[in-house]
Amino acid sequence: MTTFHSPPRFPRGIRCASRNVGLKPAAKDLTLFVSDVDAAAAAVFTRNHFPGAPIILGRETIRGGTLRAIIANSKVSNVATGAAGVANARRMAAAAATELGTRADHVLVSSTGVIGVPLPIEKIEAGVVGMAAELQLDPFVGAEGIMTTDTHPKALSASVGDATITWVAKGSGMIEPNMATMLAYIFTDAAIAPATLDAMLRTAIGRSFNMLSVDTDTSTSDTCAILANGLAGPVDEAAFLETLTAGCVRMTEILGRDGEGAEHLLRVHVRGARDDREARFIAKAVLNSPLVKTMVHGADPNVGRLLMAVGKCFDCTVRPASTDAWINGHQVVRGGERLAFEDAVVREALTAKVVDLEIALGVGPAEATAYGCDLTKGYIEENASYYSS
Amino acid sequence: MTTFHSPPRFPRGIRCASRNVGLKPAAKDLTLFVSDVDAAAAAVFTRNHFPGAPIILGRETIRGGTLRAIIANSKVSNVATGAAGVANARRMAAAAATELGTRADHVLVSSTGVIGVPLPIEKIEAGVVGMAAELQLDPFVGAEGIMTTDTHPKALSASVGDATITWVAKGSGMIEPNMATMLAYIFTDAAIAPATLDAMLRTAIGRSFNMLSVDTDTSTSDTCAILANGLAGPVDEAAFLETLTAGCVRMTEILGRDGEGAEHLLRVHVRGARDDREARFIAKAVLNSPLVKTMVHGADPNVGRLLMAVGKCFDCTVRPASTDAWINGHQVVRGGERLAFEDAVVREALTAKVVDLEIALGVGPAEATAYGCDLTKGYIEENASYYSS
Repeated sequence: MTTFHSPPRFPRGIRCASRNVGLKPAAKDLTLFVSDVDAAAAAVFTRNHFPGAPIILGRETIRGGTLRAIIANSKVSNVATGAAGVANARRMAAAAATELGTRADHVLVSSTGVIGVPLPIEKIEAGVVGMAAELQLDPFVGAEGIMTTDTHPKALSASVGDATITWVAKGSGMIEPNMATMLAYIFTDAAIAPATLDAMLRTAIGRSFNMLSVDTDTSTSDTCAILANGLAGPVDEAAFLETLTAGCVRMTEILGRDGEGAEHLLRVHVRGARDDREARFIAKAVLNSPLVKTMVHGADPNVGRLLMAVGKCFDCTVRPASTDAWINGHQVVRGGERLAFEDAVVREALTAKVVDLEIALGVGPAEATAYGCDLTKGYIEENASYYSS
Repeated sequence: MTTFHSPPRFPRGIRCASRNVGLKPAAKDLTLFVSDVDAAAAAVFTRNHFPGAPIILGRETIRGGTLRAIIANSKVSNVATGAAGVANARRMAAAAATELGTRADHVLVSSTGVIGVPLPIEKIEAGVVGMAAELQLDPFVGAEGIMTTDTHPKALSASVGDATITWVAKGSGMIEPNMATMLAYIFTDAAIAPATLDAMLRTAIGRSFNMLSVDTDTSTSDTCAILANGLAGPVDEAAFLETLTAGCVRMTEILGRDGEGAEHLLRVHVRGARDDREARFIAKAVLNSPLVKTMVHGADPNVGRLLMAVGKCFDCTVRPASTDAWINGHQVVRGGERLAFEDAVVREALTAKVVDLEIALGVGPAEATAYGCDLTKGYIEENASYYSS
């Protein structure tokens, strides 16, 4: 069981700063994360066919395996902006490098916000000047500059032996990451080689961010990067991976709970599936079903929808006679049939802030958990005017 | 171009009746469709792993290739009700057969409504008595008895030579049919053998109902059946298939336009795809994207979301440089980049009752059209309390 620090703090040698540079009317819109020394680094990016310019550049940058800093802006995502967009992303890396006295190819660039609008690069270049003098130790300060529809900044930290791991993320809508969530940065002072870091990051993401979905839509800007500056020396790698994964899962839950318009964190646990692929597929199908999500939203014990959602996984092995289901511990389905439960009890269970839906398939040994949220009028409201507002 | 009759009418020898038998407080909840003579028949059912009892029975019934009648109730779907549910479906067929003086295995049974609630079979058995005397010629009367969240009864008809084809359907939510929409019945007086009828039905469905999605959720009760009683004699089969398909597409549009909470009919046309599978997959992905749907709902020209939705089809061939997109005829994307269009013009185009999104991939020869609707607060409202209300 991982214990998270309260409040979260950075590892040795990691600091951040954030500012409003005029992309948003007043809220912070530019963040720098900086390591005092070069850090081993790994990153995973969106699989969307229309990656943003920062992703195109980031794939190139991360090949070196070394980062000193991350510069990230919100409001404009620099996606679908062509060659000019990539040139702007390079200018953004160069501006941060100049300000920090490092190399541009040691700076990872991220942009998040509206797709298809040119990046106001001059505002960023002017705005970053002087930020090196403002670097400080509160991870929430960095988290603030990357928020879009997030209702609060998101940061966590935990210890592994003498080392610290810190997670800073943003994300609220357009979330069904495929390889990483919107933007998630992980910092540690443990000494770990880039290749090991990359493998551990992919393992942790597979059980956390890649099992998160707010709305089935995959961002063109998804990025999850990890920096290990080594200032705390080597750590036990098994313990590190365990804590890394636990923090990624916890951050996944925080992102799900803050899904656009969300009022509940929804977790779908599938067990007894034929294999991993089917366990993950069915968990996501139930999690993403609008009818399951609205059932949770309305605390309406319309539990047949759980079977509907499992049943629409045509290419998975499902045996009605061995299918059971529970809602926050209350069994509602046995052998593919709805049990005659007390409506009021299940209705009450559905009002909890965290709703666990458990599906036992009785088919094989595999299990998976998917994370998300309910579907509310707030989601409609935010997304019917996101571009215009 | 198919011309539909106004108002719609039945083919020779087809009649219907509907009643309230006490499943709903006052609205009609039981329908009979009857052919004066035995009709060649074919049907396609849901692929959901948890088919309703009427589907289990219907697959057995349709093997005979002959139907005289359809009995369908709304409010309760008789799904996830086990062996008792199947026994109730058989009793429902038998009750209709007795009332009409035919065989139970010539009666197709459908039930639609809440999943997992026992069917009040006694009310249906008592309620069907005397309905034979009420049979009449208005297809809307039959359509009324099968409505759930539909806002209006749905029927169409058209001529093929001397024959008539009539479509009666219901459907509003839990619609991403896989093999058929919620409930759709097609009647004709053309003389066509069951095997031919089955092949033509599958062709027509592939281009219509199976390209419809309201919410990505696949009903456990999907049924599309066709009855051909032959009273008009043989027809030109190519002409018949063309009209059959046109009516299925038109009914698909009617169902999409009446999707739960819908304010717009949304059509996504994909062309230049590598092959049929990819054309259909991408069209559905764009159609089902909550962010595209809310963009249409809010008439918010956030057109980058079109690229996001195409781009998340990881396993399809997509080339950003050859990707173009239009909204109701206005080009908004060229070569994977957002064009500098006039916001007000595209905003205006998005307020149309029918919104056509066109994506040209420039990859291959295949095309497909998918049908659906926008995502609104009305959808949330209806589905957060469907069971309880």
